[in-house]
Amino acid sequence: MDHSRTTAIDMNKAEFKTRERDLRTQLLDAQFDVRAARSRAVLILLNGPDGSGKGAVLNRLFEWLDPRGVRALAYDIEREIGAYPPAWRYWRDLPPRGRIGVVLGSWYHFLLLRRATEQIDEQQFRTGLENINRWEAMMHRDGVLLLKIWLQLSPETAQQRYNEKKRQRGPMRRPLVREWGEIDTKKERARLVEAARLMGEATHRSRMPWHLVPADDSNRRDIAVGELLLSVLRSAESTQVRGTTSQPATRFSAAPSILAQLDLSRSLDKREARKRLQEAQERLYDLSRCRAFKGRALVCVFEGQDAAGKGGAIRRLRAALDPRQATVYPIGAPTEEERARPYLWRFWRRLPPRGAISVFDRSWYGRVLVERVEGLAREDEWQLAYDEINDFERQLHNDGYIIHKFWLAIDADEQLRRFEARKDTPHKRFKITDEDWRNRAKWDAYRAAVDDMLALTSPSSAPWTVVESNDKRFARVKVVETLVTRLESEL
Amino acid sequence: MDHSRTTAIDMNKAEFKTRERDLRTQLLDAQFDVRAARSRAVLILLNGPDGSGKGAVLNRLFEWLDPRGVRALAYDIEREIGAYPPAWRYWRDLPPRGRIGVVLGSWYHFLLLRRATEQIDEQQFRTGLENINRWEAMMHRDGVLLLKIWLQLSPETAQQRYNEKKRQRGPMRRPLVREWGEIDTKKERARLVEAARLMGEATHRSRMPWHLVPADDSNRRDIAVGELLLSVLRSAESTQVRGTTSQPATRFSAAPSILAQLDLSRSLDKREARKRLQEAQERLYDLSRCRAFKGRALVCVFEGQDAAGKGGAIRRLRAALDPRQATVYPIGAPTEEERARPYLWRFWRRLPPRGAISVFDRSWYGRVLVERVEGLAREDEWQLAYDEINDFERQLHNDGYIIHKFWLAIDADEQLRRFEARKDTPHKRFKITDEDWRNRAKWDAYRAAVDDMLALTSPSSAPWTVVESNDKRFARVKVVETLVTRLESEL
Repeated sequence: MDHSRTTAIDMNKAEFKTRERDLRTQLLDAQFDVRAARSRAVLILLNGPDGSGKGAVLNRLFEWLDPRGVRALAYDIEREIGAYPPAWRYWRDLPPRGRIGVVLGSWYHFLLLRRATEQIDEQQFRTGLENINRWEAMMHRDGVLLLKIWLQLSPETAQQRYNEKKRQRGPMRRPLVREWGEIDTKKERARLVEAARLMGEATHRSRMPWHLVPADDSNRRDIAVGELLLSVLRSAESTQVRGTTSQPATRFSAAPSILAQLDLSRSLDKREARKRLQEAQERLYDLSRCRAFKGRALVCVFEGQDAAGKGGAIRRLRAALDPRQATVYPIGAPTEEERARPYLWRFWRRLPPRGAISVFDRSWYGRVLVERVEGLAREDEWQLAYDEINDFERQLHNDGYIIHKFWLAIDADEQLRRFEARKDTPHKRFKITDEDWRNRAKWDAYRAAVDDMLALTSPSSAPWTVVESNDKRFARVKVVETLVTRLESEL
Repeated sequence: MDHSRTTAIDMNKAEFKTRERDLRTQLLDAQFDVRAARSRAVLILLNGPDGSGKGAVLNRLFEWLDPRGVRALAYDIEREIGAYPPAWRYWRDLPPRGRIGVVLGSWYHFLLLRRATEQIDEQQFRTGLENINRWEAMMHRDGVLLLKIWLQLSPETAQQRYNEKKRQRGPMRRPLVREWGEIDTKKERARLVEAARLMGEATHRSRMPWHLVPADDSNRRDIAVGELLLSVLRSAESTQVRGTTSQPATRFSAAPSILAQLDLSRSLDKREARKRLQEAQERLYDLSRCRAFKGRALVCVFEGQDAAGKGGAIRRLRAALDPRQATVYPIGAPTEEERARPYLWRFWRRLPPRGAISVFDRSWYGRVLVERVEGLAREDEWQLAYDEINDFERQLHNDGYIIHKFWLAIDADEQLRRFEARKDTPHKRFKITDEDWRNRAKWDAYRAAVDDMLALTSPSSAPWTVVESNDKRFARVKVVETLVTRLESEL
C-alpha cells in the first residue's frame, strides 16, 4: 500500500482554515446573489460509497452556507417504493428558484443498487441512465442547476472503512449514512464499482457533468466540494438557455391531421345515451373499486376547445366515482410557489397515490397549447415539451399508472352557437369571457397546436382519445365507455 | 307509517326546476363575489346517515357551482389513522380564501363512529366535541366560514334505505358513500342517533351552527342545501371579526417573569463542552433510531433573540441526526399560498410523519412574538393565539408527537457584542441586517411578549426550555442534553 501517497495529499489544518475562510465568504456572496436573482435553483447531488463522508459534507455545507436557503433531500431506502412513483419525492421537495437543495444518494442510488444486486441487467440499467439524462436535461432547461458529485475513495481507504464498519458492535455509535447496507458480498461490491463507472460515462453531459472528488482526506474533500459549488453558483446567471419567442401558427409535426378526419356529426338519441351512460358509469365504479386497481392509479386528462363540454363530461365521470378516491383538479394560472419551479412540478404534486384517481381539467398540455399559441413559452421550450411530457407519462406508466387523455373536439360553428347560448343563460354566463372570444380568433393556430400534440404525444401507453363533441350526449357516453374499455384491458 | 306526510313534503319536478333556475344563478353570482374578494374560504360539512344522499348533494353542488372553485375533501375510513395526526389531511386540503371545500363526513365522523361502537365513553366524546368547538372557532377567526349540515332521514326512510342496502347482492351497483359501514347492530345504530343528538347540542355555536336538512325527498334536500350555501356565501363579506391594532408593550399574563430569573453567566469550558456534546449527540442519535421512536415523532422549536445562537444550536442537532429522518425548516415570510389560509397551515404542512423529526428555526410562535410586537396581527388575534397554539400542540401530543421548544436567551450587552462581531467577520456579515437593529430597539416589547409566551404556552406535554445562551458552548450542550433527557422519558 502506497502510504506516502495518502500522506502527500492530506491537507493540514492550518491550510484548511486559511482556504475555508475565503471560501465561506465567497460562497455566501454567491448564494445571496442567486437568491436575489431567483432565476435558478441549485441541486447538489452527493453520491459515493459508504464511508466517503456524504453526511459530513452535508453538514459542512449547512455550516458554510446560510442554512435558511438550503434544504437536505434524503430518504429512507425502505420507503423508496411507496404510494407514488420513485421520482415523486424529489419533485415534492424540489427547492424553488433562488434556493439550494442537497440530495443524498439521489436518483442514481436506487438504480445502482438494483444493478449491483443484479435485480436488473445491464440493458435495463442503461435505459434507466438514459431516462435520467433526459430528466436532468429537462430540469436544467427549466431552471435547475445540477452539481453532480461522486465522492471517490481509494481502494485502500474503502477497504479500511469497510472493515471498521464490519467490526462495529452494538448500536451504531456515529450517525453514518448507510446507503449501501444491502451490498455485502465482494462480488456485489465489485459490481457496484463497475456500475458506478458506467453511470459516470453514460450520464456525464456538458451541462450536467460528474465531478469526481477524492474523499480519502476530509479537509481536501470539503474544500473541493465548496469550490465546485462556488463555480456553479457563480455561473447561475450566465447559463441562459438560448431561445426565441416567435409563435408559428403552422404545424410542427409532419403527421396527418387527426382533427381533419373527424366525423363531428356523430350523435346519440336521449334514451339510448342515458341507458348507455348509466351502464358505463356503474361498470366504471365497479372497476375503480376492484381489487386489481388498488395497486394501480388512474390519471385522466381533459383538454378541448372552449365550450367543448369538458365540465359536463367530467361531471359524468365524477358522478360515477367515489369522491374519497377520485379528485378533480382544475388547472388555471400557476401560483407563486409553482412559478418558482419547473412547469411539471404542479402536476407531480397532484398525482394520485396508488389506488386513487386524479382527473385534470386542463393539464401539462397547456405548455404545448395555450403557452405555445400565446407565446408564454419560448419556441425551444414548447418544442422540447413534447418529449418532456412523453418522458413524464412514461415514468408514470412504468410505475403502473394508467394514463388516459381526452381531446374534446367541436367545430367553429358549434362553438359559436354555444358561446351565444351561454350569453343568454344566466347560470352559464360565467363560462364565457372576453378571453374565450380572443382564443376563438386564433382558431387556426390552436388547431395546428392540437394536431401537433395529438401526433407527438400518443404512445399506446398513454393514448389520446379524440371525442367528437358537437353532440354532448355522444361525447359523454364515449368518454365513460372509453375509460371502461381501457380499465378492463389494464386490470 | 304516516305515508301521507312523506307525500306532502315532496317537491315535484316542475317546482324544483323553477327554484333551481334562480338558485343556480344566485349561487354563481355569490361564488364569484367570494372569489373576487378572496377574504374567506368556505367549508361545507356534509354529514348524515348512510342513504341520506351526501354523495348526491356533493355532485349537485359541483353541477350548480363553478366546479373550478370547488374541491371535495373525502377520505377513506381505513386510511383514517395514518402517518399523521387525524386533522392533518383537512389542513393539507384546506381551500385557500375565495374557494369552497365540501367535506364528506368531516372531523365529526370518526368521533361519532368511535362513540357508536363504544370505543370511547361519553366523557371522552364530550371532550372531543369541545376540542372541535375550539378548532372550528379558530378556523372561523382565521377566515374559514363553516356550513355544517346534517342530512336528516325520518326513521321510516332510514329503515327503508337500510333494508334496501342489506338486500343488495354482489358488487355495489351504485357509487354510494358507505360511511357507517361498521355500524351494524340495532344497538349501535341507536347509539349513533344519540351521539349525533349530543353532538348537535354540544357543537352548535352562533358562528358555526348546525343545520338540519330533511333528506327524505332529494329535490327538497338539494334546494335546502343550496339556499343555506347561498346565505353563507352572501354573508362572507359582512362577517368581519372585531379587533383593534394597538400593540401594548406591557405584559399580558400575570405570571412572574421567567427571563428575569435567569442566570446568564452560566458557561462551560471547551474540553468539557466538547466531551458532553459528543456524548449527548451519540445518545440522541441512538434514541432517534430506536424501535420505540418509529411510532412517535419529534417536533423541535427554536426561538430566541437575534444573534442568540439558534443556527449554531440547530447545526449541532442536525449533525447528530440522520438527514433521511430529520428536516430543518427555516420559517420566513409566508408565501402567497400560505397567506391564503389560516396561519397554522404552513406548519401543519411541515409536520413530520411518524418516525421522523421536524426542527423549526422560528415557528408558529411568530404570531405572539414578531406579529404581536410589529402589529402584523391584531390584538385579539395574538391574544387568542396562545390558546390556539396550545390546542394545536395538544392535538399533536395526543397523537403521540413529542414537542420540545427552546428559547435561547442572551442579554442586551451580549447581543450588542455579537452584532458588532458579525459586522467584522466577512462570513457572518449576512447575519446582521438593519432589521436586527430595529428589533433591538424594541427590546422591552419583545421581552414582554416572550414572558407572556413562556407563561401561557408551557404545558408539561410541550414544555419550553429556556437556554442561557451568553455562552454558546453551554447553550449547545444544554439543548442536546435536554432533548436526550426528554426522549429518554418519552420512549
